Amino acid sequence: MTSLPESPTSAAGIQRLPRTLASDVASYADRPGQPLRLSGWVHRRRRLSGLTFLVLRDRSGTAQVVVKDEVTLAQIEELPEETTIDVVGLASVNAQAPGGIEVVEPTIVALGAPSDTPPIELWRPKITAGLPTMLDHAQVTWRHPRQQASWRLAAASLHGFRHTLDHDGFTEVHSPKLVESATESGANVFTVDYFGRPAYLAQSPQFYKQVLVGVFERVYEVGPVFRAEPHDTVRHLAEYVSLDVELGFICDHYEVIGVLRDVIAGMVASIRARATSAVELLDVRVPVVPDEFPIVHFRDALEIARAPADEPDLSPAHERAIGAWAIEEHRSDFVVVEGYPTAHRAFYTHPDPADPHWSRSFDLIFRGIELVSGAQRLHRYDDYVQTLRRRGYPLEPYAGYVDAFKHGIPPHGGFAIGLERWTGRLLEVENIRQVTLFPRDLHRIAP
Amino acid sequence: MTSLPESPTSAAGIQRLPRTLASDVASYADRPGQPLRLSGWVHRRRRLSGLTFLVLRDRSGTAQVVVKDEVTLAQIEELPEETTIDVVGLASVNAQAPGGIEVVEPTIVALGAPSDTPPIELWRPKITAGLPTMLDHAQVTWRHPRQQASWRLAAASLHGFRHTLDHDGFTEVHSPKLVESATESGANVFTVDYFGRPAYLAQSPQFYKQVLVGVFERVYEVGPVFRAEPHDTVRHLAEYVSLDVELGFICDHYEVIGVLRDVIAGMVASIRARATSAVELLDVRVPVVPDEFPIVHFRDALEIARAPADEPDLSPAHERAIGAWAIEEHRSDFVVVEGYPTAHRAFYTHPDPADPHWSRSFDLIFRGIELVSGAQRLHRYDDYVQTLRRRGYPLEPYAGYVDAFKHGIPPHGGFAIGLERWTGRLLEVENIRQVTLFPRDLHRIAP
Repeated sequence: MTSLPESPTSAAGIQRLPRTLASDVASYADRPGQPLRLSGWVHRRRRLSGLTFLVLRDRSGTAQVVVKDEVTLAQIEELPEETTIDVVGLASVNAQAPGGIEVVEPTIVALGAPSDTPPIELWRPKITAGLPTMLDHAQVTWRHPRQQASWRLAAASLHGFRHTLDHDGFTEVHSPKLVESATESGANVFTVDYFGRPAYLAQSPQFYKQVLVGVFERVYEVGPVFRAEPHDTVRHLAEYVSLDVELGFICDHYEVIGVLRDVIAGMVASIRARATSAVELLDVRVPVVPDEFPIVHFRDALEIARAPADEPDLSPAHERAIGAWAIEEHRSDFVVVEGYPTAHRAFYTHPDPADPHWSRSFDLIFRGIELVSGAQRLHRYDDYVQTLRRRGYPLEPYAGYVDAFKHGIPPHGGFAIGLERWTGRLLEVENIRQVTLFPRDLHRIAP
Repeated sequence: MTSLPESPTSAAGIQRLPRTLASDVASYADRPGQPLRLSGWVHRRRRLSGLTFLVLRDRSGTAQVVVKDEVTLAQIEELPEETTIDVVGLASVNAQAPGGIEVVEPTIVALGAPSDTPPIELWRPKITAGLPTMLDHAQVTWRHPRQQASWRLAAASLHGFRHTLDHDGFTEVHSPKLVESATESGANVFTVDYFGRPAYLAQSPQFYKQVLVGVFERVYEVGPVFRAEPHDTVRHLAEYVSLDVELGFICDHYEVIGVLRDVIAGMVASIRARATSAVELLDVRVPVVPDEFPIVHFRDALEIARAPADEPDLSPAHERAIGAWAIEEHRSDFVVVEGYPTAHRAFYTHPDPADPHWSRSFDLIFRGIELVSGAQRLHRYDDYVQTLRRRGYPLEPYAGYVDAFKHGIPPHGGFAIGLERWTGRLLEVENIRQVTLFPRDLHRIAP
């Protein structure tokens, strides 16, 4: 086996100086002439007469490096965009530079071979490539500062989600994704060869979060869910990140909606606190979360949407109309529709005791699109058996699920938020794939 | 459809009093005679002459309710263990009661039908059922206070993991679990019917965390990984929760080991801070994390384990010997073995430049069992191509992986911690299934 060359970062001199992030270069304003070391990618070279501006990008942002000497000018001709480099130079004040400080007299070491020409022009302020090209080269596309920023909104949202629930007595759980039978329905489920017999990929952690209410009372999970979604739409994915919540000892679904309000408020607060520069770069219209979400009954929602009174569900057009109404009537980007017809929700949905035609279910509509589904669930064994029988479902495939309710599951309810749908609506993108790290759909399983 | 009865928690009177958790009952010591409301499970009824102690369990612990009047005595005869109840009564000082306070003159409302006899006797101090029974009834088994506590250690560990990395510039990511080809090798991979063509379940997020180093420099992921593990052992699962970390712009694997040390220290600190009562109940021997992990080279590890110098890997017996040595020599529950033979690690492992027979890989051994695997990885495209060729692997299935390295991935490395293996070693259980919420293996896919 041939020996690999020593990593250039170990080269004498460069290694000893601690690394400075691009976002900290401005802090050298009171230390002009001070040496500093940057590491990152060649984001862009701008050649002028007699000098080249090298824009270095790292996880924190970009910094400007000024190259004037002939040797280094020749060197960087051979280091195309996206090559990883180490730079040692001197801080220098320049009012024209980003942050007022640039790096001069640089010594540059490439950390790998020169990069191939990137399939996406990352140095442009906005990506100009079409969506198929972006998705085919996702591992490079995500390097674009605007793409990075959109994921930082997602990461900050996850932090806010957990932070809110951790402080409210919830326990994080992780349920299995390989399951014996499909919870929701037999359709749209992926089949796995499980040691020679069929198993399925979980469409949701529904069963597990319900039985874990029997253990911890209040649980949440962040994890992948799988839908063998045969439709190629701008809002559906075959795999996405689901933020699941379930809580016990509730009186009704309004308690669940209250927790949902706090969770969304926590996600928004975390975005403001932890993704400030992403919000600025993308000019995000961060929503104001009202103290209480406006709630309309499904019956009234149909009226608002001017839909026939016997519609069993809301169409995307209806949701848009209700979203517009909420902004007009309540100045709210959010509106909860409660009371969907029981027959058209999952079998475990709790009917409204006052009129079981309607259910104690709800959707949260955010800017005109359904973001969250939730409900109070059935909690009594007999109710499950009766409901399955009434719907004409065979009991046997549900036995494992239903038997769990023989052992004291308290009145409970919960909801699920789709992470990519959330960031998609925050950024008001046309296609959910634009905010999904590596989307999976009918036609796409790579990269 | 028949109307379901109104939820009993809405019954007049009971609803208006806010709920008190069992762990807060002791705070009524200065308010004897004050009414309070508890919700939870009938954990145990202890019948004495003329009175019954009802032990109520909720997510926070247990509380003692004293029943004396004939009507309530008759009522609770019909409410077996694990029935969910609401109790309104008066706080009363009793030095014999847990926390010095019990609840007297209770009004009890069942929140569901009386429970079936639980398959596991949850009221016993320790579970007496065998492992197969425990696993068959996992949804009930986890209610046992000792089982609950063992998961609380896991949940606190996850919090400490993220907290440490969030403060160290890492970005949380979620990579797809449905993949086009197997990263590690063709064996031990589950096949999925993906819209009529084969896809696979990811054995690790290895590829994705490496290419995301090209985006965010430092990333972590908590998520399921899948191994079609054909062996039925006490330490292997077909699905487990992997805590993955990857970081770029490193000099060598020692930087990765440094991050690992901080992560483990953060997990332990979080257990101490957030799972205090679980640590007490289970009498957990919480490890002390040294400022630096002791590190031995693979060559020396073989000598310590008195193994032949040409062994390609460490056996479980070797790991136990090295664990014992670390306690004796370093008073450390942790020891890192570095430098495993390159040929026996994954193809993306970075060789030691000084002697490429050995690699820049490492394992962390915790109490005599491998807990973590990590390494510096190859980061140059040419090194990948050469290594695959040298190993005689076909290039084509790896093309998507390897091509990513044409676009400037910095020197990087990372590691993965198995969550269940971590809590298993913390609690020194015999079988990893004892600390896995719903284990999956060769023979088990339910519940």
